[in-house]
Amino acid sequence: MAGPTAVLVVVGSEVLSAKVLDENGPWAARRLRELGVQLLAIHTVPDRVDEIVEVVERARRRATWVFTSGGVGPTHDDVTIAAVARALGRPIVRSPALAASIAAMHRLHHGGAEPPAAALRMADVPEGTALLGDPSFPTLVAENVVMLPGVPRFFRWQLDRIADRLAAPPFRLAAVFLRVAEHEVAPALDSVQRAHPDVEIGSYPRFDDADHLVKVTLESKDGARVDVALAALLAALPAEAVIRTERG
Amino acid sequence: MAGPTAVLVVVGSEVLSAKVLDENGPWAARRLRELGVQLLAIHTVPDRVDEIVEVVERARRRATWVFTSGGVGPTHDDVTIAAVARALGRPIVRSPALAASIAAMHRLHHGGAEPPAAALRMADVPEGTALLGDPSFPTLVAENVVMLPGVPRFFRWQLDRIADRLAAPPFRLAAVFLRVAEHEVAPALDSVQRAHPDVEIGSYPRFDDADHLVKVTLESKDGARVDVALAALLAALPAEAVIRTERG
Repeated sequence: MAGPTAVLVVVGSEVLSAKVLDENGPWAARRLRELGVQLLAIHTVPDRVDEIVEVVERARRRATWVFTSGGVGPTHDDVTIAAVARALGRPIVRSPALAASIAAMHRLHHGGAEPPAAALRMADVPEGTALLGDPSFPTLVAENVVMLPGVPRFFRWQLDRIADRLAAPPFRLAAVFLRVAEHEVAPALDSVQRAHPDVEIGSYPRFDDADHLVKVTLESKDGARVDVALAALLAALPAEAVIRTERG
Repeated sequence: MAGPTAVLVVVGSEVLSAKVLDENGPWAARRLRELGVQLLAIHTVPDRVDEIVEVVERARRRATWVFTSGGVGPTHDDVTIAAVARALGRPIVRSPALAASIAAMHRLHHGGAEPPAAALRMADVPEGTALLGDPSFPTLVAENVVMLPGVPRFFRWQLDRIADRLAAPPFRLAAVFLRVAEHEVAPALDSVQRAHPDVEIGSYPRFDDADHLVKVTLESKDGARVDVALAALLAALPAEAVIRTERG
């Protein structure tokens, strides 16, 4: 599908070991969808430099945007910044603007005291990192890599601050709800998908008490193409198989 | 950490486009954890053969087990079996046992009628695939790749049927809850992690109304090593920083 794409890298040993349920993946999928950005993959990897480097290196060549979630704090297990710097082949430098904003925040919350060295470590970023969005809690962007915090509230805030830079034309979706099983419509779906390769057709069976057995989705950024593929699909299906059609 | 490892590959265009919330990743993380299996990564990728091949090929060399979720139905967007076969360098063959079980299930639900060709497509598997667990709804295992259905109920059922083959000694965990901010304990955490590289130490800040500001976790499969690292950490922290300690 044409338009901007994204890969999300969740840096999350705590997610893989089931200490924490990842909220950022599902939220980012919804939000990027709303913004017209196609999410190509979500990779959840441990807090290890080599693994993050490998996945970011590959992702940044494929996608318009790479978002990382987590690993940007002041402790030994916060290694995302170092990994992104290495993936981009850039040194890590201290950002004076970020250091000033961390110091100001620290003084505000600690009766005027200056921040310790560990707190200022959070001002070290890949060389050339842009500070976008909210100046007092900026979104860090180096080339096409956006380094977001793992805390869901902060992740959302910082991504939303750059939403206008991400936004693209919306996806157009149609859905057809069927009262027959997947294997009964598989040949029709297959032939319509072949005839309309630029419309993405998905088939989602249900095995619960829903009013339908299968939901078929058709999508593209071009609404006219969705219309044409939808008409072809409805022509290919037995009329009695279709419960209803929805357009989004 | 010693012991068996796993990678989960979620084949899920519907997850990436936010049509469906993935339940299998979080469930597998918890269940594998209970079974003493270390989850190394979760990769959520589209329903595309080349992308699944790439991620399965890499994962199966690194991990004891690779689990795939989804893409095993009878429609054009069900491409996991073909991708796993290619990643393993094996042809796809029809399994007589699987075909018999699909036919029996179809006859049961369709008044004795034989299944159509599309339904029998689900009996095509990588050559040499073992059918484990429940004979009437078997878990498909080819080398170290376990091909699970995407429907959460079926995913859980089929993974649980082979749980005894996966099980390994449990993880041992300690947690320390702190009333100070992360940057205040970062140097202590760093030095304890360096002195005890075989214990994995994680630091999780909170920014809500919890009774603590940071939860530090220490884990290993060797409980004695956790004890030693925990003692070292408590010695390195100011006593007034610690609210409480938990052992799991």
